[in-house]
Amino acid sequence: MADEKAKVDMETIVSLCRRRGFIFPSSEIYGGLNSCWDYGPLGAELKKNIKDAWWQAIVRERDDVVGLDSSILMHPKVWEASGHLVNFTDPLVECKSCNQRFRADQVEGTKCPNCGGELSAPRQFNLMFKTFMGPVEEDAAVVYLRPETCQGIFVNFENVLNTTRKRLPFGIAQIGKAFRNEITTGNFIFRSREFEQMELEYFVRPGEDARWFDYWLEQYLNWFASLGIKREHLRLREHGKDELSHYSSRTVDIHYLFPMGWEELQGIANRGNFDLTQHGKYSGKELSYFDEETKEHIVPHVVEPSVGVDRLVLAILCDAYDEDVAQGESRVVLRFHPSLAPFKAAVLPLSKKEPLVKMASDINAGLRKNIMTTYDDAQSVGRRYRRQDEIGTPFCITIDFQSLEDKQVTIRERDSMNQIRVPVAEIQKTLTAKLAGEDFLILPPGGAVVGKKG
Amino acid sequence: MADEKAKVDMETIVSLCRRRGFIFPSSEIYGGLNSCWDYGPLGAELKKNIKDAWWQAIVRERDDVVGLDSSILMHPKVWEASGHLVNFTDPLVECKSCNQRFRADQVEGTKCPNCGGELSAPRQFNLMFKTFMGPVEEDAAVVYLRPETCQGIFVNFENVLNTTRKRLPFGIAQIGKAFRNEITTGNFIFRSREFEQMELEYFVRPGEDARWFDYWLEQYLNWFASLGIKREHLRLREHGKDELSHYSSRTVDIHYLFPMGWEELQGIANRGNFDLTQHGKYSGKELSYFDEETKEHIVPHVVEPSVGVDRLVLAILCDAYDEDVAQGESRVVLRFHPSLAPFKAAVLPLSKKEPLVKMASDINAGLRKNIMTTYDDAQSVGRRYRRQDEIGTPFCITIDFQSLEDKQVTIRERDSMNQIRVPVAEIQKTLTAKLAGEDFLILPPGGAVVGKKG
Repeated sequence: MADEKAKVDMETIVSLCRRRGFIFPSSEIYGGLNSCWDYGPLGAELKKNIKDAWWQAIVRERDDVVGLDSSILMHPKVWEASGHLVNFTDPLVECKSCNQRFRADQVEGTKCPNCGGELSAPRQFNLMFKTFMGPVEEDAAVVYLRPETCQGIFVNFENVLNTTRKRLPFGIAQIGKAFRNEITTGNFIFRSREFEQMELEYFVRPGEDARWFDYWLEQYLNWFASLGIKREHLRLREHGKDELSHYSSRTVDIHYLFPMGWEELQGIANRGNFDLTQHGKYSGKELSYFDEETKEHIVPHVVEPSVGVDRLVLAILCDAYDEDVAQGESRVVLRFHPSLAPFKAAVLPLSKKEPLVKMASDINAGLRKNIMTTYDDAQSVGRRYRRQDEIGTPFCITIDFQSLEDKQVTIRERDSMNQIRVPVAEIQKTLTAKLAGEDFLILPPGGAVVGKKG
Repeated sequence: MADEKAKVDMETIVSLCRRRGFIFPSSEIYGGLNSCWDYGPLGAELKKNIKDAWWQAIVRERDDVVGLDSSILMHPKVWEASGHLVNFTDPLVECKSCNQRFRADQVEGTKCPNCGGELSAPRQFNLMFKTFMGPVEEDAAVVYLRPETCQGIFVNFENVLNTTRKRLPFGIAQIGKAFRNEITTGNFIFRSREFEQMELEYFVRPGEDARWFDYWLEQYLNWFASLGIKREHLRLREHGKDELSHYSSRTVDIHYLFPMGWEELQGIANRGNFDLTQHGKYSGKELSYFDEETKEHIVPHVVEPSVGVDRLVLAILCDAYDEDVAQGESRVVLRFHPSLAPFKAAVLPLSKKEPLVKMASDINAGLRKNIMTTYDDAQSVGRRYRRQDEIGTPFCITIDFQSLEDKQVTIRERDSMNQIRVPVAEIQKTLTAKLAGEDFLILPPGGAVVGKKG
């Protein structure tokens, strides 16, 4: 396993993302802001599609999970209770000559990597971004940007319980930004200082944690598969007893085979009753659940599957990336699951001749309300197919001169490159059926396969 | 107009939101964090539905607008160029005795409202939240939480232009959090320190701004109407020459009749070429557009319609709020447009008897994948109707003993309280048609109206 390599290197992915408008360095015209990223037009669609798929699967299709959208700025006591104020630190050393700081575990030798000066003893550096609320910059006004979204769920446990009257087991899910002032960032969007999480806290009766842990592990593996991620690119890593976080009795990471190797895509932790107990203690409120069966107040345990949205975007980009050869010409193709593709179809008039452009524009306008499309009339249709392949558009709809006569268009499928002729009136129905299907390869519905063309 | 009053007061809305799980004070168990709010299960759905409706209307259904999702932390030069570092300030006075600070324009007399002490002369206080990136808290490491989302669009103008090859006029849209360290906050989610914006920057040829300004003003009025906001609760306010921001040649606010009076829901500004020019100057990059027609490089002008998501949530809650009397009993009903309602339908077994619960659960599970439902079997069906009315659920599906025999259910409509009987196999089709329709009032399709019942 150690020798396995991803089929695409990071440079290729970064370059494609930059070139086609998936992801740009943040504030790029000012030289970029270290380790922050902006999602361009295609990246914004891809990321939204991923988040929407998660919300649909985890919140909307389930009776036992509700959503939440809590604020990034939280009361500072939250981070006392959670342990972040004390424990969420990296050991840093400072150079006594040039005052630069480095992570103690990443400095080799005992000299400053910058100027060769003497280094201080390691000190703990908190990774939370701090800011000041209100007009005065003093200790009393310090608040933090949340370093994780889950605490917003825990502090709302009682609010959610009281307003939804859910019975155990039930979950609270949210998607949102989190911020960590990491000293060492990198690997593109894999580790950045501003990132997005999709977190579920699933509350269960004490003693039932282990079963639900296994359940959610399996659910997530299935969910990743439903997004088209290949199972052989995922593997599980069980944390040893000595590496478990202070709050966790069991943690399993789902690793993905990224270009830089196997790295964490998702963690599932059994947090027990740590968080509710801590917030109960620090807030003076009893955060418990009245069990109708036993007539007892209990503090539920919680199983937490947590995914980094940006990591999942990266995994999906890498997993979709492919190169193949069509008609002796190599192409790059992103084999996105159609539900995630930024555009579902591209509308391409064969040339810029007015009647073709008119017909193509009408078709595009007709589809647009229900199917996310793009329109392209620049350069040869072969080049345009390549451009759509490279951004993962599952279908191309070509309007040619024959279309003016027979009111039919050619639909070309990204992966197989099969082409069929479909009446204009049936384009939407045909695409909708194909996009909804598990297998979206083109099989002749009303039209005939006219062969593989580039 | 000055005497007009909203039909609901703020206290009623805040209380309903708190009680039913739309919106909670942030970090409430710790006494709350001044002017930050958490969206509970129903609020998270409502807000997501609003944002999705906007993304669909502004980005996905239009060929001339693309999306973006830029980071909250940006290069500090951005705020020099935009003018925020210098101009985004409030004048504050400080008490020389107790050191409390107040907004100069809100202190009456010349004494401290807190202790009666002497006040300093006003000083400018910047409203941006600042934090430090990297391990040292020094001036060189200062970054700001963005106070508006639009600058992320301007600094990506060239990236978007190059990767999408859009021609003028075209727009870039994004939804995201912004932060302002307001001294005076209040009116629930109307003015808070952490909030969400939906911004569109629509780039046009110089000289065409005025026309596009009018176009977008009308588009937005139409869009608000499509969300069910009553036109008589919206009015326009044109900024006088003396109140225009430094970057704007024309600004029109769309005001909504909130419980505290007419206040800004949306602003539309003609920003001219201010932003692209400034960022060009500060970055040293030429931010321009090559006009194929005139073969000239031009700096586009921009029309900016900007909506506060939280304000729109509040407007929609207020506009939907109604009280009426059914069967001599008063009810509260949120008359949400069905596309915005957190739940589209509630599934209610008439009693907790096992065969009813089984049938209701099966129906609920069957609908859930396509229609957001909720299940409720607690208390009388009349009480449950009231509960669903109060959270704006458009339809209730009741399973009674007759349902076990004839495999039909009763569908009750929230607004009219009309009821029809529908075969189980047709529930989804019936609801889908009603939810998609512009008018979703129940008119007998296959079943018969069985009368208005509570």
